Amino acid sequence: MNTPDQNFDALNLILPKAPEPMGVYKPFLQVGNTVYVSGHGTLKSDGTFIVGKIGDNMTMEEGKLAAKQVGLAMLATLKENLGSLDKIKQVIKVLGMVNCTPDFAEHPFVINGCSELLAAIWGEELGIGVRSAVGMSSLPGAIPVEIEAQFLLHG
Amino acid sequence: MNTPDQNFDALNLILPKAPEPMGVYKPFLQVGNTVYVSGHGTLKSDGTFIVGKIGDNMTMEEGKLAAKQVGLAMLATLKENLGSLDKIKQVIKVLGMVNCTPDFAEHPFVINGCSELLAAIWGEELGIGVRSAVGMSSLPGAIPVEIEAQFLLHG
Amino acid sequence: MNTPDQNFDALNLILPKAPEPMGVYKPFLQVGNTVYVSGHGTLKSDGTFIVGKIGDNMTMEEGKLAAKQVGLAMLATLKENLGSLDKIKQVIKVLGMVNCTPDFAEHPFVINGCSELLAAIWGEELGIGVRSAVGMSSLPGAIPVEIEAQFLLHG
Repeated sequence: MNTPDQNFDALNLILPKAPEPMGVYKPFLQVGNTVYVSGHGTLKSDGTFIVGKIGDNMTMEEGKLAAKQVGLAMLATLKENLGSLDKIKQVIKVLGMVNCTPDFAEHPFVINGCSELLAAIWGEELGIGVRSAVGMSSLPGAIPVEIEAQFLLHG
Repeated sequence: MNTPDQNFDALNLILPKAPEPMGVYKPFLQVGNTVYVSGHGTLKSDGTFIVGKIGDNMTMEEGKLAAKQVGLAMLATLKENLGSLDKIKQVIKVLGMVNCTPDFAEHPFVINGCSELLAAIWGEELGIGVRSAVGMSSLPGAIPVEIEAQFLLHG
Repeated sequence: MNTPDQNFDALNLILPKAPEPMGVYKPFLQVGNTVYVSGHGTLKSDGTFIVGKIGDNMTMEEGKLAAKQVGLAMLATLKENLGSLDKIKQVIKVLGMVNCTPDFAEHPFVINGCSELLAAIWGEELGIGVRSAVGMSSLPGAIPVEIEAQFLLHG
């Protein structure tokens, strides 16, 4: 049975630098045993963002990869603030927001790109929490996916 | 003074089967005394979903009925996971997301379809929590309403 | 070092009357040490609301002022329910929802109008929490900004 850090290492993921806030907010906040993570975007390792609108200039498969990239940015924030992913016991909640055309209907498929990443690190039981996946008319900087999340720390 | 289960029985409601997750998430999660419920859709007893966009091919009255159906799906999830609605003390929070045209402005009226149902079961004081009701450009499977919620269990 | 109430007084802000619910919800709910505030709108002191869609008939600078007005309405709710802003230790979470055109990309700039207000009252450390700032296709009553928030009370 691997720890989250061991799972992370085995996946050979390349994380971006933990994102700086793009406004008056903190990317990460711990209150008691709960960790809150701000809406994260599609930050890449080169410091730029994946941009696009799903159903318009981006396919749902590209959207799923974009959601995975959001998950990587979120992991960067968690590692920067906590030191180790092992401090997190459980994913509580994910709000997955998809920048897409009004007729788009495959939001769960897109947000799975992030959720599958979290499940690969914390496991099928503790790495999967509740979720909403919904369609926004626009997102900051024209990114295709923004995701906020809530985690539970160990005792 | 009736219990939530007694109120539920008196309303003669027909619940759908508790919805299966449509992606990598759990419909229900308990953390300490708090119950988190994923974004639920307009699941009907026959297993299909109400679909449509309010202001386009659906009126706001139909939207309100759709929001009630979301509430019924949520009750099905709560009963399946908790056994009894009496275990829930209080509604904490509802996020009501309406799939509608850009000029639609009656989101509170629509989401009341769910909120009135919760108030009928847990009462005017404990069955009504905080809420946001907002307009999405699209929702999964073209459903007109998606609602996520948070409840408090008895100590 | 001023208290939040002292900071509030020094800012000479004019608050609207605490908003009445526009549907089946409570504007304010305390559960343990946590305060939940419903989605608030752009309520002005004269009882009317700022209306408009950013990128269409409203600039982003006007949107930022609208977000500040939402913050003022939220402060009115907090003062009405708690008596004193000093009871709040910390801003936990803000969800800033912007009613804008599908090509709008400056949501963080808009929601800063509210976040800067909270930071001026509770300070740069405790007055700034996590946040998501996103684009909605519509909002109740055609308001340009709706914001919900979560605060931590002093033990």
